[in-house]
Amino acid sequence: MDKVRKKMGRQLPEIQVFLNDLPGNDFNTIFKSLPKFQKDLQKTMGAGAESCFVTGVPGSFYGRLFPSKSLHFVHSSYSLQWLSQVPQGLESNKGNIYMASSSPPSVLKAYYEQFQRDFSMFLRCRSEELLEGGGTVLTFLGRRSEDPSSKECCYIWELLAVALNDMVSEGLIAEEKMDSFNIPQYTPSPAEVKCEVEKEGSFIINRLEVSEVNWNAYHGEFCPSDAHKDGGYNVAKLMRAVAEPLLVSHFGDGIIEEVFSRYKNIVADRMTREKTEFVNVTVSMTKRG
Amino acid sequence: MDKVRKKMGRQLPEIQVFLNDLPGNDFNTIFKSLPKFQKDLQKTMGAGAESCFVTGVPGSFYGRLFPSKSLHFVHSSYSLQWLSQVPQGLESNKGNIYMASSSPPSVLKAYYEQFQRDFSMFLRCRSEELLEGGGTVLTFLGRRSEDPSSKECCYIWELLAVALNDMVSEGLIAEEKMDSFNIPQYTPSPAEVKCEVEKEGSFIINRLEVSEVNWNAYHGEFCPSDAHKDGGYNVAKLMRAVAEPLLVSHFGDGIIEEVFSRYKNIVADRMTREKTEFVNVTVSMTKRG
Repeated sequence: MDKVRKKMGRQLPEIQVFLNDLPGNDFNTIFKSLPKFQKDLQKTMGAGAESCFVTGVPGSFYGRLFPSKSLHFVHSSYSLQWLSQVPQGLESNKGNIYMASSSPPSVLKAYYEQFQRDFSMFLRCRSEELLEGGGTVLTFLGRRSEDPSSKECCYIWELLAVALNDMVSEGLIAEEKMDSFNIPQYTPSPAEVKCEVEKEGSFIINRLEVSEVNWNAYHGEFCPSDAHKDGGYNVAKLMRAVAEPLLVSHFGDGIIEEVFSRYKNIVADRMTREKTEFVNVTVSMTKRG
Repeated sequence: MDKVRKKMGRQLPEIQVFLNDLPGNDFNTIFKSLPKFQKDLQKTMGAGAESCFVTGVPGSFYGRLFPSKSLHFVHSSYSLQWLSQVPQGLESNKGNIYMASSSPPSVLKAYYEQFQRDFSMFLRCRSEELLEGGGTVLTFLGRRSEDPSSKECCYIWELLAVALNDMVSEGLIAEEKMDSFNIPQYTPSPAEVKCEVEKEGSFIINRLEVSEVNWNAYHGEFCPSDAHKDGGYNVAKLMRAVAEPLLVSHFGDGIIEEVFSRYKNIVADRMTREKTEFVNVTVSMTKRG
Protein backbone atom coordinates (compact mmCIF):
# COMPACT_ATOMS: atom_id res chain seq x y z
CA MET A 1 0.00 0.00 0.00
CA ASP A 2 2.85 2.34 0.87
CA LYS A 3 4.50 1.70 -2.50
CA VAL A 4 1.28 2.29 -4.42
CA ARG A 5 0.42 5.54 -2.64
CA LYS A 6 3.98 6.83 -3.22
CA LYS A 7 3.69 6.05 -6.95
CA MET A 8 0.41 7.99 -6.98
CA GLY A 9 1.95 10.86 -5.02
CA ARG A 10 -0.61 10.53 -2.26
CA GLN A 11 -0.56 10.51 1.53
CA LEU A 12 -0.91 7.13 3.23
CA PRO A 13 -4.54 6.73 4.33
CA GLU A 14 -5.36 5.84 7.91
CA ILE A 15 -5.42 2.05 8.27
CA GLN A 16 -7.30 0.13 10.94
CA VAL A 17 -6.12 -3.48 11.21
CA PHE A 18 -8.25 -6.09 13.01
CA LEU A 19 -6.34 -9.22 14.01
CA ASN A 20 -8.75 -12.11 14.49
CA ASP A 21 -8.25 -15.44 16.24
CA LEU A 22 -10.20 -17.70 18.60
CA PRO A 23 -10.69 -16.24 22.11
CA GLY A 24 -8.26 -18.79 23.61
CA ASN A 25 -5.36 -17.52 21.50
CA ASP A 26 -2.53 -15.56 23.14
CA PHE A 27 -3.35 -11.99 22.14
CA ASN A 28 -1.25 -10.57 25.02
CA THR A 29 2.05 -11.51 23.38
CA ILE A 30 0.98 -9.97 20.07
CA PHE A 31 -0.24 -6.80 21.79
CA LYS A 32 3.00 -6.44 23.76
CA SER A 33 5.00 -6.64 20.52
CA LEU A 34 3.01 -3.85 18.86
CA PRO A 35 4.86 -0.79 20.24
CA LYS A 36 8.12 -2.12 18.76
CA PHE A 37 6.37 -3.11 15.53
CA GLN A 38 4.97 0.38 15.15
CA LYS A 39 8.33 1.98 15.91
CA ASP A 40 9.99 -0.19 13.24
CA LEU A 41 7.21 0.65 10.78
CA GLN A 42 7.80 4.33 11.39
CA LYS A 43 11.51 3.86 10.65
CA THR A 44 10.90 2.19 7.28
CA MET A 45 7.85 4.16 6.21
CA GLY A 46 8.33 7.53 7.88
CA ALA A 47 5.36 9.80 8.59
CA GLY A 48 2.00 8.11 8.20
CA ALA A 49 3.00 4.90 9.97
CA GLU A 50 1.49 6.25 13.19
CA SER A 51 -1.88 6.12 11.42
CA CYS A 52 -1.87 2.33 11.42
CA PHE A 53 -4.23 1.34 14.24
CA VAL A 54 -4.13 -2.28 15.36
CA THR A 55 -6.91 -4.02 17.30
CA GLY A 56 -7.62 -7.62 18.31
CA VAL A 57 -10.86 -9.45 17.56
CA PRO A 58 -11.49 -12.63 19.54
CA GLY A 59 -14.01 -15.01 17.98
CA SER A 60 -14.62 -17.71 15.37
CA PHE A 61 -14.61 -16.53 11.76
CA TYR A 62 -17.41 -19.03 11.14
CA GLY A 63 -19.71 -16.40 12.61
CA ARG A 64 -20.09 -12.62 12.37
CA LEU A 65 -17.18 -10.65 13.84
CA PHE A 66 -17.74 -7.11 12.50
CA PRO A 67 -20.63 -4.71 11.82
CA SER A 68 -22.25 -4.79 8.38
CA LYS A 69 -20.40 -3.09 5.55
CA SER A 70 -17.55 -1.98 7.77
CA LEU A 71 -14.51 -3.63 6.11
CA HIS A 72 -12.58 -2.79 2.94
CA PHE A 73 -10.39 -5.86 2.81
CA VAL A 74 -10.26 -9.30 4.42
CA HIS A 75 -7.19 -11.53 4.47
CA SER A 76 -6.98 -15.02 5.87
CA SER A 77 -3.72 -16.95 5.78
CA TYR A 78 -3.39 -20.66 6.55
CA SER A 79 -6.51 -20.78 8.74
CA LEU A 80 -9.49 -21.69 6.55
CA GLN A 81 -8.42 -25.32 6.25
CA TRP A 82 -9.48 -25.60 9.93
CA LEU A 83 -13.08 -26.74 10.24
CA SER A 84 -15.43 -25.41 12.92
CA GLN A 85 -15.58 -28.93 14.40
CA VAL A 86 -14.63 -32.56 13.75
CA PRO A 87 -17.26 -33.75 11.25
CA GLN A 88 -19.99 -36.09 12.53
CA GLY A 89 -20.00 -39.69 11.24
CA LEU A 90 -16.31 -40.60 11.27
CA GLU A 91 -16.80 -43.80 13.32
CA SER A 92 -15.58 -45.93 10.42
CA ASN A 93 -12.29 -44.03 10.04
CA LYS A 94 -10.50 -46.53 12.27
CA GLY A 95 -6.70 -46.43 12.31
CA ASN A 96 -6.71 -43.03 10.57
CA ILE A 97 -6.70 -39.57 12.07
CA TYR A 98 -7.57 -37.63 8.91
CA MET A 99 -8.77 -38.45 5.43
CA ALA A 100 -6.52 -41.24 4.12
CA SER A 101 -6.36 -43.59 1.16
CA SER A 102 -7.90 -46.26 3.41
CA SER A 103 -10.78 -44.01 4.60
CA PRO A 104 -14.25 -45.23 3.52
CA PRO A 105 -16.24 -42.95 1.13
CA SER A 106 -18.63 -41.93 3.95
CA VAL A 107 -15.70 -40.40 5.81
CA LEU A 108 -14.54 -38.39 2.80
CA LYS A 109 -18.14 -37.24 2.29
CA ALA A 110 -18.52 -36.17 5.95
CA TYR A 111 -15.32 -34.14 5.74
CA TYR A 112 -16.32 -32.51 2.46
CA GLU A 113 -19.79 -31.58 3.67
CA GLN A 114 -18.37 -30.01 6.83
CA PHE A 115 -16.00 -27.97 4.65
CA GLN A 116 -18.91 -26.85 2.44
CA ARG A 117 -21.02 -25.73 5.41
CA ASP A 118 -18.12 -23.97 7.11
CA PHE A 119 -16.64 -22.24 4.07
CA SER A 120 -20.00 -21.02 2.78
CA MET A 121 -20.77 -19.67 6.28
CA PHE A 122 -17.41 -17.85 6.22
CA LEU A 123 -18.21 -16.37 2.81
CA ARG A 124 -21.68 -15.22 3.90
CA CYS A 125 -20.40 -13.59 7.10
CA ARG A 126 -17.54 -11.79 5.35
CA SER A 127 -19.78 -10.66 2.49
CA GLU A 128 -22.10 -9.04 5.05
CA GLU A 129 -19.15 -7.28 6.68
CA LEU A 130 -17.40 -6.07 3.52
CA LEU A 131 -18.34 -2.89 1.74
CA GLU A 132 -19.47 -3.26 -1.86
CA GLY A 133 -16.41 -3.60 -4.06
CA GLY A 134 -14.36 -4.70 -1.05
CA GLY A 135 -11.72 -7.33 -1.60
CA THR A 136 -10.47 -10.51 -0.02
CA VAL A 137 -7.45 -12.78 -0.41
CA LEU A 138 -7.67 -16.21 1.20
CA THR A 139 -4.85 -18.76 1.41
CA PHE A 140 -5.73 -22.35 2.33
CA LEU A 141 -3.56 -25.32 2.93
CA GLY A 142 -5.00 -27.43 0.09
CA ARG A 143 -4.25 -29.80 -2.80
CA ARG A 144 -4.02 -29.89 -6.60
CA SER A 145 -5.74 -33.26 -7.01
CA GLU A 146 -9.51 -33.77 -6.98
CA ASP A 147 -8.97 -36.79 -4.71
CA PRO A 148 -9.61 -35.59 -1.12
CA SER A 149 -7.42 -38.37 0.27
CA SER A 150 -4.57 -37.43 -2.05
CA LYS A 151 -1.08 -37.89 -0.67
CA GLU A 152 -0.16 -34.22 -1.20
CA CYS A 153 -2.49 -33.10 1.60
CA CYS A 154 -2.96 -36.21 3.74
CA TYR A 155 0.49 -37.77 3.88
CA ILE A 156 1.82 -35.58 6.68
CA TRP A 157 -1.11 -36.69 8.88
CA GLU A 158 -0.78 -40.32 7.79
CA LEU A 159 2.76 -40.30 9.15
CA LEU A 160 1.47 -39.01 12.48
CA ALA A 161 -1.09 -41.85 12.39
CA VAL A 162 1.83 -44.28 11.85
CA ALA A 163 3.46 -43.04 15.05
CA LEU A 164 0.18 -43.29 16.99
CA ASN A 165 -0.66 -46.77 15.60
CA ASP A 166 2.81 -48.02 16.57
CA MET A 167 2.07 -46.88 20.09
CA VAL A 168 -1.35 -48.58 20.00
CA SER A 169 0.28 -51.88 18.98
CA GLU A 170 2.74 -51.49 21.86
CA GLY A 171 -0.11 -50.90 24.28
CA LEU A 172 0.87 -47.29 24.98
CA ILE A 173 -2.37 -45.91 23.56
CA ALA A 174 -5.83 -47.55 23.82
CA GLU A 175 -7.20 -48.61 20.43
CA GLU A 176 -10.63 -46.99 21.07
CA LYS A 177 -8.87 -43.71 21.86
CA MET A 178 -7.01 -43.87 18.55
CA ASP A 179 -10.15 -44.80 16.59
CA SER A 180 -12.13 -41.86 17.94
CA PHE A 181 -9.46 -39.24 17.16
CA ASN A 182 -9.79 -37.18 13.96
CA ILE A 183 -8.29 -33.89 12.86
CA PRO A 184 -10.84 -31.08 12.18
CA GLN A 185 -9.27 -30.01 8.93
CA TYR A 186 -10.12 -30.02 5.23
CA THR A 187 -7.57 -29.21 2.56
CA PRO A 188 -9.63 -28.25 -0.50
CA SER A 189 -8.77 -28.26 -4.21
CA PRO A 190 -9.05 -25.05 -6.24
CA ALA A 191 -12.17 -26.47 -7.92
CA GLU A 192 -13.84 -27.07 -4.55
CA VAL A 193 -13.04 -23.52 -3.43
CA LYS A 194 -14.41 -22.15 -6.72
CA CYS A 195 -17.56 -24.26 -6.42
CA GLU A 196 -18.42 -22.92 -2.93
CA VAL A 197 -17.70 -19.33 -3.92
CA GLU A 198 -20.04 -19.60 -6.93
CA LYS A 199 -22.78 -21.34 -4.92
CA GLU A 200 -22.66 -18.69 -2.19
CA GLY A 201 -22.78 -15.97 -4.83
CA SER A 202 -21.47 -12.85 -3.05
CA PHE A 203 -17.99 -12.79 -4.59
CA ILE A 204 -16.36 -12.59 -8.02
CA ILE A 205 -13.13 -14.57 -8.32
CA ASN A 206 -10.28 -12.50 -9.75
CA ARG A 207 -7.52 -15.05 -9.42
CA LEU A 208 -7.26 -18.61 -8.14
CA GLU A 209 -3.78 -20.05 -7.84
CA VAL A 210 -1.92 -23.04 -6.49
CA SER A 211 1.61 -23.00 -5.16
CA GLU A 212 3.90 -25.34 -3.25
CA VAL A 213 6.15 -24.94 -0.26
CA ASN A 214 8.53 -27.57 1.10
CA TRP A 215 7.57 -29.24 4.41
CA ASN A 216 10.87 -27.94 5.72
CA ALA A 217 10.70 -24.13 5.60
CA TYR A 218 14.52 -24.00 5.56
CA HIS A 219 14.77 -26.27 2.51
CA GLY A 220 17.40 -24.93 0.10
CA GLU A 221 18.01 -21.84 2.23
CA PHE A 222 20.94 -20.71 4.31
CA CYS A 223 20.70 -22.49 7.66
CA PRO A 224 21.60 -20.33 10.66
CA SER A 225 22.19 -23.36 12.86
CA ASP A 226 22.64 -27.12 12.56
CA ALA A 227 19.21 -27.69 14.06
CA HIS A 228 17.63 -26.08 11.03
CA LYS A 229 19.40 -28.52 8.71
CA ASP A 230 17.52 -31.39 10.37
CA GLY A 231 14.36 -31.52 8.24
CA GLY A 232 12.69 -34.18 10.39
CA TYR A 233 13.22 -32.04 13.49
CA ASN A 234 11.87 -28.92 11.80
CA VAL A 235 8.75 -30.57 10.42
CA ALA A 236 7.99 -32.46 13.63
CA LYS A 237 8.30 -29.17 15.54
CA LEU A 238 6.02 -27.37 13.09
CA MET A 239 3.41 -30.12 13.27
CA ARG A 240 3.71 -30.30 17.04
CA ALA A 241 2.87 -26.58 17.29
CA VAL A 242 -0.23 -27.30 15.21
CA ALA A 243 -1.34 -30.67 16.59
CA GLU A 244 -0.26 -30.76 20.25
CA PRO A 245 -3.38 -29.01 21.64
CA LEU A 246 -5.63 -31.40 19.69
CA LEU A 247 -3.69 -34.48 20.83
CA VAL A 248 -3.51 -33.35 24.45
CA SER A 249 -7.24 -32.67 24.72
CA HIS A 250 -7.98 -36.19 23.38
CA PHE A 251 -5.13 -38.37 24.70
CA GLY A 252 -3.85 -36.34 27.66
CA ASP A 253 -0.31 -34.95 27.75
CA GLY A 254 1.45 -38.13 28.85
CA ILE A 255 2.05 -39.41 25.32
CA ILE A 256 3.19 -36.19 23.64
CA GLU A 257 6.98 -36.46 23.91
CA GLU A 258 6.94 -40.05 22.71
CA VAL A 259 4.57 -39.36 19.78
CA PHE A 260 6.65 -36.52 18.39
CA SER A 261 9.96 -38.27 18.99
CA ARG A 262 8.67 -41.17 16.83
CA TYR A 263 7.09 -38.79 14.33
CA LYS A 264 10.37 -36.92 13.87
CA ASN A 265 12.17 -40.13 12.87
CA ILE A 266 9.38 -41.26 10.52
CA VAL A 267 9.24 -37.84 8.83
CA ALA A 268 13.04 -37.59 8.52
CA ASP A 269 13.14 -41.00 6.83
CA ARG A 270 10.43 -40.12 4.27
CA MET A 271 11.88 -36.71 3.51
CA THR A 272 15.13 -38.25 2.30
CA ARG A 273 13.25 -40.49 -0.11
CA GLU A 274 10.33 -38.41 -1.43
CA LYS A 275 9.39 -34.92 -2.54
CA THR A 276 7.52 -33.53 0.46
CA GLU A 277 5.56 -30.36 -0.13
CA PHE A 278 2.52 -28.54 1.20
CA VAL A 279 0.10 -27.23 -1.43
CA ASN A 280 -1.37 -23.74 -1.04
CA VAL A 281 -4.60 -22.67 -2.70
CA THR A 282 -4.95 -18.89 -2.90
CA VAL A 283 -8.03 -17.06 -4.10
CA SER A 284 -8.42 -13.33 -4.68
CA MET A 285 -12.02 -12.05 -4.88
CA THR A 286 -14.15 -8.89 -4.99
CA LYS A 287 -17.53 -8.47 -3.35
CA ARG A 288 -20.27 -8.01 -5.93
CA GLY A 289 -21.93 -4.59 -6.17
CA MET B 1 -29.52 1.43 24.71
CA ASP B 2 -31.71 -1.66 24.68
CA LYS B 3 -34.31 0.08 26.84
CA VAL B 4 -34.36 3.18 24.65
CA ARG B 5 -34.71 1.29 21.38
CA LYS B 6 -37.56 -0.80 22.86
CA LYS B 7 -39.35 2.37 23.90
CA MET B 8 -38.93 3.68 20.35
CA GLY B 9 -40.08 0.37 18.88
CA ARG B 10 -36.85 -0.06 16.97
CA GLN B 11 -34.42 -2.90 16.33
CA LEU B 12 -31.15 -2.80 18.28
CA PRO B 13 -28.45 -1.35 16.01
CA GLU B 14 -25.19 -3.23 15.48
CA ILE B 15 -22.73 -2.17 18.17
CA GLN B 16 -18.95 -2.41 17.90
CA VAL B 17 -17.24 -2.06 21.27
CA PHE B 18 -13.52 -1.28 21.49
CA LEU B 19 -11.95 -2.09 24.86
CA ASN B 20 -8.80 -0.04 25.35
CA ASP B 21 -5.96 -0.52 27.82
CA LEU B 22 -2.16 -0.35 27.79
CA PRO B 23 -0.48 -3.14 25.77
CA GLY B 24 0.80 -4.81 28.96
CA ASN B 25 -2.72 -5.38 30.27
CA ASP B 26 -4.17 -8.91 30.38
CA PHE B 27 -6.49 -8.91 27.39
CA ASN B 28 -6.47 -12.74 27.20
CA THR B 29 -8.57 -13.13 30.34
CA ILE B 30 -11.10 -10.60 29.10
CA PHE B 31 -11.26 -12.23 25.66
CA LYS B 32 -11.77 -15.69 27.16
CA SER B 33 -14.70 -14.39 29.19
CA LEU B 34 -16.46 -12.95 26.12
CA PRO B 35 -18.26 -16.08 24.84
CA LYS B 36 -20.02 -16.45 28.21
CA PHE B 37 -20.68 -12.69 28.38
CA GLN B 38 -22.31 -12.77 24.95
CA LYS B 39 -24.38 -15.83 25.84
CA ASP B 40 -25.65 -14.09 28.99
CA LEU B 41 -26.37 -10.93 26.99
CA GLN B 42 -28.45 -12.98 24.57
CA LYS B 43 -30.44 -14.44 27.47
CA THR B 44 -31.34 -11.01 28.88
CA MET B 45 -31.72 -9.10 25.62
CA GLY B 46 -32.83 -11.76 23.18
CA ALA B 47 -32.29 -11.30 19.43
CA GLY B 48 -29.91 -8.51 18.57
CA ALA B 49 -27.36 -9.32 21.25
CA GLU B 50 -25.32 -11.27 18.70
CA SER B 51 -24.77 -7.96 16.91
CA CYS B 52 -22.56 -6.68 19.72
CA PHE B 53 -19.00 -7.05 18.41
CA VAL B 54 -16.21 -6.70 20.95
CA THR B 55 -12.58 -5.93 20.07
CA GLY B 56 -9.47 -5.05 22.07
CA VAL B 57 -7.33 -1.98 21.44
CA PRO B 58 -3.86 -2.00 23.03
CA GLY B 59 -2.28 1.43 23.42
CA SER B 60 -2.11 4.62 25.48
CA PHE B 61 -5.16 6.86 25.27
CA TYR B 62 -2.77 9.82 25.42
CA GLY B 63 -2.21 9.20 21.71
CA ARG B 64 -4.39 8.33 18.71
CA LEU B 65 -5.99 4.89 18.88
CA PHE B 66 -8.66 4.99 16.15
CA PRO B 67 -9.11 6.38 12.61
CA SER B 68 -10.51 9.90 12.24
CA LYS B 69 -14.25 10.33 12.70
CA SER B 70 -14.84 6.65 13.34
CA LEU B 71 -16.43 6.66 16.82
CA HIS B 72 -19.92 7.58 18.03
CA PHE B 73 -19.27 7.42 21.74
CA VAL B 74 -16.27 7.32 24.08
CA HIS B 75 -16.44 6.25 27.70
CA SER B 76 -13.57 6.25 30.18
CA SER B 77 -14.11 5.06 33.72
CA TYR B 78 -11.61 5.55 36.56
CA SER B 79 -8.60 5.81 34.23
CA LEU B 80 -8.03 9.46 33.35
CA GLN B 81 -6.63 10.29 36.79
CA TRP B 82 -3.56 8.28 35.66
CA LEU B 83 -0.94 10.54 34.10
CA SER B 84 1.16 9.48 31.12
CA GLN B 85 4.26 9.67 33.35
CA VAL B 86 5.48 10.81 36.76
CA PRO B 87 5.84 14.60 36.38
CA GLN B 88 9.37 16.03 36.13
CA GLY B 89 10.64 18.19 38.99
CA LEU B 90 9.39 16.33 42.07
CA GLU B 91 12.84 16.17 43.75
CA SER B 92 11.61 18.34 46.62
CA ASN B 93 8.65 16.05 47.44
CA LYS B 94 10.69 14.19 50.06
CA GLY B 95 8.80 11.93 52.45
CA ASN B 96 5.71 12.09 50.24
CA ILE B 97 4.65 9.79 47.39
CA TYR B 98 1.89 11.97 45.96
CA MET B 99 0.68 15.53 46.42
CA ALA B 100 0.35 16.11 50.16
CA SER B 101 -0.28 19.00 52.53
CA SER B 102 3.49 19.12 53.10
CA SER B 103 4.36 19.17 49.36
CA PRO B 104 6.07 22.41 48.20
CA PRO B 105 4.14 24.55 45.66
CA SER B 106 6.55 23.54 42.85
CA VAL B 107 5.43 19.93 43.27
CA LEU B 108 1.74 20.82 43.08
CA LYS B 109 2.50 22.89 39.98
CA ALA B 110 4.42 20.05 38.29
CA TYR B 111 1.54 17.66 38.91
CA TYR B 112 -1.06 20.12 37.64
CA GLU B 113 0.89 20.93 34.48
CA GLN B 114 1.33 17.23 33.69
CA PHE B 115 -2.44 16.78 34.09
CA GLN B 116 -3.10 19.74 31.78
CA ARG B 117 -0.79 18.40 29.04
CA ASP B 118 -2.15 14.85 29.33
CA PHE B 119 -5.84 15.65 29.54
CA SER B 120 -5.76 18.16 26.69
CA MET B 121 -3.91 15.57 24.57
CA PHE B 122 -6.64 13.05 25.42
CA LEU B 123 -9.33 15.54 24.42
CA ARG B 124 -7.60 16.38 21.12
CA CYS B 125 -7.11 12.71 20.17
CA ARG B 126 -10.68 11.73 21.00
CA SER B 127 -12.11 14.77 19.22
CA GLU B 128 -10.28 13.69 16.06
CA GLU B 129 -11.67 10.17 16.39
CA LEU B 130 -15.27 11.08 17.22
CA LEU B 131 -17.86 11.88 14.57
CA GLU B 132 -19.41 15.33 14.75
CA GLY B 133 -22.13 15.25 17.39
CA GLY B 134 -20.53 12.22 18.98
CA GLY B 135 -20.63 11.94 22.75
CA THR B 136 -18.36 11.13 25.62
CA VAL B 137 -18.75 10.42 29.33
CA LEU B 138 -15.59 10.51 31.44
CA THR B 139 -15.33 9.57 35.11
CA PHE B 140 -12.21 10.61 37.03
CA LEU B 141 -11.15 9.90 40.53
CA GLY B 142 -11.07 13.55 41.66
CA ARG B 143 -11.92 16.03 44.40
CA ARG B 144 -14.45 18.74 45.30
CA SER B 145 -11.92 21.18 46.73
CA GLU B 146 -9.76 23.54 44.67
CA ASP B 147 -6.77 22.57 46.84
CA PRO B 148 -4.85 19.86 44.92
CA SER B 149 -3.37 18.51 48.15
CA SER B 150 -6.82 18.26 49.72
CA LYS B 151 -7.36 15.35 52.08
CA GLU B 152 -10.30 13.97 50.06
CA CYS B 153 -7.98 12.86 47.24
CA CYS B 154 -4.53 12.63 48.85
CA TYR B 155 -5.21 11.03 52.21
CA ILE B 156 -5.31 7.44 50.96
CA TRP B 157 -1.80 7.92 49.48
CA GLU B 158 -0.57 9.76 52.58
CA LEU B 159 -1.41 6.68 54.63
CA LEU B 160 0.63 4.54 52.24
CA ALA B 161 3.48 7.04 52.69
CA VAL B 162 3.13 6.57 56.48
CA ALA B 163 3.70 2.83 56.05
CA LEU B 164 6.69 3.41 53.76
CA ASN B 165 8.22 6.09 56.02
CA ASP B 166 7.90 3.77 59.03
CA MET B 167 9.90 1.20 57.08
CA VAL B 168 12.48 3.86 56.16
CA SER B 169 12.95 4.78 59.83
CA GLU B 170 13.40 1.08 60.64
CA GLY B 171 16.03 0.75 57.91
CA LEU B 172 13.89 -1.55 55.77
CA ILE B 173 13.74 0.92 52.88
CA ALA B 174 16.54 3.30 51.80
CA GLU B 175 15.63 6.96 52.28
CA GLU B 176 16.76 7.93 48.74
CA LYS B 177 14.49 5.22 47.33
CA MET B 178 11.54 6.63 49.24
CA ASP B 179 12.33 10.22 48.25
CA SER B 180 12.44 9.39 44.53
CA PHE B 181 9.10 7.53 44.47
CA ASN B 182 5.99 9.38 43.30
CA ILE B 183 2.61 8.21 42.03
CA PRO B 184 1.77 9.26 38.41
CA GLN B 185 -1.74 10.38 39.22
CA TYR B 186 -3.73 13.60 39.34
CA THR B 187 -7.19 13.82 40.86
CA PRO B 188 -8.73 16.96 39.36
CA SER B 189 -11.53 19.20 40.58
CA PRO B 190 -14.61 19.78 38.38
CA ALA B 191 -13.35 23.33 37.71
CA GLU B 192 -10.00 22.01 36.46
CA VAL B 193 -11.73 19.54 34.16
CA LYS B 194 -14.00 22.29 32.84
CA CYS B 195 -11.04 24.62 32.30
CA GLU B 196 -9.13 22.09 30.12
CA VAL B 197 -12.24 21.22 28.11
CA GLU B 198 -12.88 24.89 27.35
CA LYS B 199 -9.25 25.59 26.48
CA GLU B 200 -9.07 22.61 24.12
CA GLY B 201 -12.31 23.73 22.52
CA SER B 202 -13.64 20.59 20.74
CA PHE B 203 -16.35 19.67 23.21
CA ILE B 204 -19.50 21.19 24.74
CA ILE B 205 -20.11 20.18 28.36
CA ASN B 206 -23.63 18.88 28.95
CA ARG B 207 -23.25 17.87 32.57
CA LEU B 208 -20.47 17.98 35.14
CA GLU B 209 -21.13 16.21 38.41
CA VAL B 210 -19.40 15.14 41.58
CA SER B 211 -20.28 12.08 43.61
CA GLU B 212 -18.78 10.13 46.48
CA VAL B 213 -18.15 6.48 47.14
CA ASN B 214 -16.89 4.98 50.40
CA TRP B 215 -13.30 3.66 50.43
CA ASN B 216 -14.80 0.33 51.40
CA ALA B 217 -17.04 -0.78 48.53
CA TYR B 218 -19.00 -2.98 50.97
CA HIS B 219 -19.76 -0.09 53.33
CA GLY B 220 -23.36 -0.28 54.49
CA GLU B 221 -24.09 -3.28 52.27
CA PHE B 222 -24.81 -6.90 53.00
CA CYS B 223 -21.47 -8.63 53.58
CA PRO B 224 -21.25 -12.10 52.06
CA SER B 225 -18.33 -13.07 54.29
CA ASP B 226 -16.52 -11.83 57.39
CA ALA B 227 -13.56 -10.76 55.26
CA HIS B 228 -15.73 -8.14 53.58
CA LYS B 229 -16.63 -6.64 56.93
CA ASP B 230 -12.97 -5.79 57.49
CA GLY B 231 -12.74 -2.37 55.87
CA GLY B 232 -8.98 -2.07 56.36
CA TYR B 233 -8.47 -5.39 54.60
CA ASN B 234 -10.75 -4.42 51.69
CA VAL B 235 -9.17 -1.03 51.12
CA ALA B 236 -5.61 -2.33 51.47
CA LYS B 237 -6.45 -5.03 48.89
CA LEU B 238 -7.99 -2.50 46.50
CA MET B 239 -4.99 -0.17 46.81
CA ARG B 240 -2.57 -3.08 46.46
CA ALA B 241 -4.18 -4.02 43.12
CA VAL B 242 -3.59 -0.44 42.00
CA ALA B 243 -0.20 0.33 43.53
CA GLU B 244 1.71 -2.97 43.64
CA PRO B 245 3.10 -2.78 40.08
CA LEU B 246 4.32 0.78 40.72
CA LEU B 247 5.92 -0.15 44.04
CA VAL B 248 7.54 -3.32 42.68
CA SER B 249 9.11 -1.56 39.73
CA HIS B 250 10.66 1.04 42.07
CA PHE B 251 11.40 -0.87 45.31
CA GLY B 252 11.51 -4.48 44.11
CA ASP B 253 9.05 -7.08 45.39
CA GLY B 254 10.78 -7.83 48.69
CA ILE B 255 8.94 -5.14 50.66
CA ILE B 256 5.42 -5.66 49.30
CA GLU B 257 3.90 -7.99 51.92
CA GLU B 258 5.24 -5.85 54.76
CA VAL B 259 4.09 -2.55 53.22
CA PHE B 260 0.51 -3.69 52.73
CA SER B 261 0.32 -5.47 56.05
CA ARG B 262 1.24 -2.16 57.76
CA TYR B 263 -1.00 -0.18 55.41
CA LYS B 264 -4.01 -2.38 56.26
CA ASN B 265 -3.64 -1.60 59.97
CA ILE B 266 -3.15 2.13 59.39
CA VAL B 267 -6.19 2.32 57.10
CA ALA B 268 -8.38 0.25 59.44
CA ASP B 269 -7.53 2.58 62.31
CA ARG B 270 -8.40 5.76 60.37
CA MET B 271 -11.60 4.31 58.94
CA THR B 272 -13.05 3.84 62.40
CA ARG B 273 -12.40 7.48 63.24
CA GLU B 274 -13.04 9.45 60.04
CA LYS B 275 -15.37 9.63 57.06
CA THR B 276 -13.34 8.06 54.26
CA GLU B 277 -14.63 8.56 50.74
CA PHE B 278 -13.35 8.72 47.18
CA VAL B 279 -14.66 11.63 45.09
CA ASN B 280 -15.72 11.01 41.49
CA VAL B 281 -15.85 13.77 38.89
CA THR B 282 -18.02 12.84 35.90
CA VAL B 283 -18.37 14.93 32.77
CA SER B 284 -20.74 14.31 29.84
CA MET B 285 -19.87 16.14 26.61
CA THR B 286 -20.75 16.42 22.92
CA LYS B 287 -18.28 17.02 20.12
CA ARG B 288 -18.91 20.40 18.47
CA GLY B 289 -20.29 20.39 14.91
